[in-house]
Amino acid sequence: MTILLTGCDGYQGWPMLMRLGVKYPDEKIIGVDNFTRRHWVAEVGSWSAIPIYPMDERIESFKEFFKLNNLEFRYMDLRNWSVVDNLIREEEPRTIVHYAAQPSAPYSMIDAEHAIDTQMNNVKSTLNLIHSINKNNLDTFLIETTTMGVYGTPNIDITDELLPVEFRGRKDTLPFPAQAGSWYHWSKVHDANNLLFAYRVYGMNVIDLRLGIVHGIRTEESERDKSLATRFDFDFWFGTLFNRFAAQCVAGFPLTIYGEGGQTRGYISLEDTIRVTELAVEAEKKGYNLINTFLETASVKMVAEKIQEAGKNIGLNVELKSVPNPRKEAEKHYYNPSNEKMFNLGFKSKYDLISSLEVVLKDLSEYKERIVVKKDKFLPKVLREKL
Amino acid sequence: MTILLTGCDGYQGWPMLMRLGVKYPDEKIIGVDNFTRRHWVAEVGSWSAIPIYPMDERIESFKEFFKLNNLEFRYMDLRNWSVVDNLIREEEPRTIVHYAAQPSAPYSMIDAEHAIDTQMNNVKSTLNLIHSINKNNLDTFLIETTTMGVYGTPNIDITDELLPVEFRGRKDTLPFPAQAGSWYHWSKVHDANNLLFAYRVYGMNVIDLRLGIVHGIRTEESERDKSLATRFDFDFWFGTLFNRFAAQCVAGFPLTIYGEGGQTRGYISLEDTIRVTELAVEAEKKGYNLINTFLETASVKMVAEKIQEAGKNIGLNVELKSVPNPRKEAEKHYYNPSNEKMFNLGFKSKYDLISSLEVVLKDLSEYKERIVVKKDKFLPKVLREKL
Repeated sequence: MTILLTGCDGYQGWPMLMRLGVKYPDEKIIGVDNFTRRHWVAEVGSWSAIPIYPMDERIESFKEFFKLNNLEFRYMDLRNWSVVDNLIREEEPRTIVHYAAQPSAPYSMIDAEHAIDTQMNNVKSTLNLIHSINKNNLDTFLIETTTMGVYGTPNIDITDELLPVEFRGRKDTLPFPAQAGSWYHWSKVHDANNLLFAYRVYGMNVIDLRLGIVHGIRTEESERDKSLATRFDFDFWFGTLFNRFAAQCVAGFPLTIYGEGGQTRGYISLEDTIRVTELAVEAEKKGYNLINTFLETASVKMVAEKIQEAGKNIGLNVELKSVPNPRKEAEKHYYNPSNEKMFNLGFKSKYDLISSLEVVLKDLSEYKERIVVKKDKFLPKVLREKL
Repeated sequence: MTILLTGCDGYQGWPMLMRLGVKYPDEKIIGVDNFTRRHWVAEVGSWSAIPIYPMDERIESFKEFFKLNNLEFRYMDLRNWSVVDNLIREEEPRTIVHYAAQPSAPYSMIDAEHAIDTQMNNVKSTLNLIHSINKNNLDTFLIETTTMGVYGTPNIDITDELLPVEFRGRKDTLPFPAQAGSWYHWSKVHDANNLLFAYRVYGMNVIDLRLGIVHGIRTEESERDKSLATRFDFDFWFGTLFNRFAAQCVAGFPLTIYGEGGQTRGYISLEDTIRVTELAVEAEKKGYNLINTFLETASVKMVAEKIQEAGKNIGLNVELKSVPNPRKEAEKHYYNPSNEKMFNLGFKSKYDLISSLEVVLKDLSEYKERIVVKKDKFLPKVLREKL
């Protein structure tokens, strides 16, 4: 049996590759990547706060620590139909965990080329996987992490069931309307739509994990050794909100809140994300499965205040600064998504925002200088000039 | 002033290019195309029932008949960002009519490559236009013909306004959920979503004309001379339902109805489509405008029966044959889309299904042999074997 993991060099990808390796010692776990995440972060002039090892060293280290020889890496550009189709035809993976994507909203909003490349990269990769599974008549379970950002922030509850709609005296249940907020987020809407159609037209087994904002640093496997660590981005483009705040906090900079900080989103820790994906692999759910994947919702201001509080406990004096919001988004809005389905998989959380934070602050403190030296990559201009 | 028309060699594109030329004699009307429609139809082994002229001869003929020298053709692949951006930067079109696309649902369903290429072709072309308009800070009106197929066939009325939704005691108005039925139709969902976001993030002036199934042959300009005729496809892949039926009727073959023929769709004639697009160009509507564009709804069986009846009137004995439905779609369903906004543009119909038919049957009769010789390209296998 073979499991394929795309984007195995990424923030979630590398820990998930190890998780699959440990969980299925008798299966071949193939990870593919073309290292574009490393290039993208280099392009914006930043780096991972925690140094990450080259893939071959990661794999060697995994062998050594876990006494397992079932991880296999393939350098591969998923936009290339022929190589994707060759791999899937030869390996016939029972499950594909599709993480590979350009994952940053701000990066996708840089300019025309970044916007277009983000959509083409993400949509083409997913289409190639869908069509190769179908062409080769496989029963593969296709698991993709999309994003809660697909929904935007509607003024009604967000359900991952079909939405009951009554209009002019008639009723139907329809897919929840998408209202994304960046070219990246729309690429995931396109993916989610194509996944739904792959189920409807081919009967494909699809699990669309709509992820909240992922935070944190450790997973059960990656915490075993520095050589097994996953990347931790803290720049404006690739650092998710919580991680960026945590890095700023460790480096002694104020936490910058756009506008009133009322933007509320779903959050989930890296370890919990890996755990949900693991459960999704284990469940082998047939048919189409849309699962909102987040543990808790919080506003930007709430996240900042939690970090401020946790910082105090370890002697860090964290200042909060409000700056104008550069993004077009509602400052105050209703936000109430459901996440029952995630728990129905058997999920139990290991890290919430607070417990994640303690670990992150501790782990990052060693790399303070790597963060400080890149301060122009995460501090708003107004703060950079003052510091 | 300049107007840009993409896909100017297509079924709608060529008549629309002439319409713009006649209507705006003092403006430069630039048509772009890479002739892929001709290649796609050749690939499936068919051709236009009505012979069409090479683009340079079409343009020369237009000059001669209309005494106008304002049409300009550029060979261009819209997937190429640099050439698209160069053109738009240099010409600064006041309006872009974006017709260029792989427009066939069955063609997009042939296999993996056709599915993937359809989505990549259509989505990339539209993204290039959106981002070049934005990059060059233009107020361009971007008019795209998407498709009523974006909506699928929900059990509620289809509105081109935002859909009022009440869920768990709270209310919002949301974009109408998409439920397309082919990789082609989903490519237009992706386009429609990207257009909506282009308005929301850049304030772009967008008109999304959601077209019904287009039928017919003549437009005010194309009927002037054979050298000005537009293409008329009748094969399984590129012939729209009505046009395919009309061709089968002229060639003396039975009309083939998939299943019970209960599938109901919106229809509009080519001349009416051109007229609505013309009105959309004229209106210069700021902001985001979604306009359902069809004249009437009819089931497959109703269309076939109308053709049978009209055939009788001119001495054609048209037989109806039912064959199993090869597509996954509901045989019987509710279908009630609105089209008030189209009329609010000032639209008056010139051809409905019946009056379009009379002209089509007359015009096609001259080309009966070109249709008969390609009978394996439109008759279902079960009928081909008997004939």
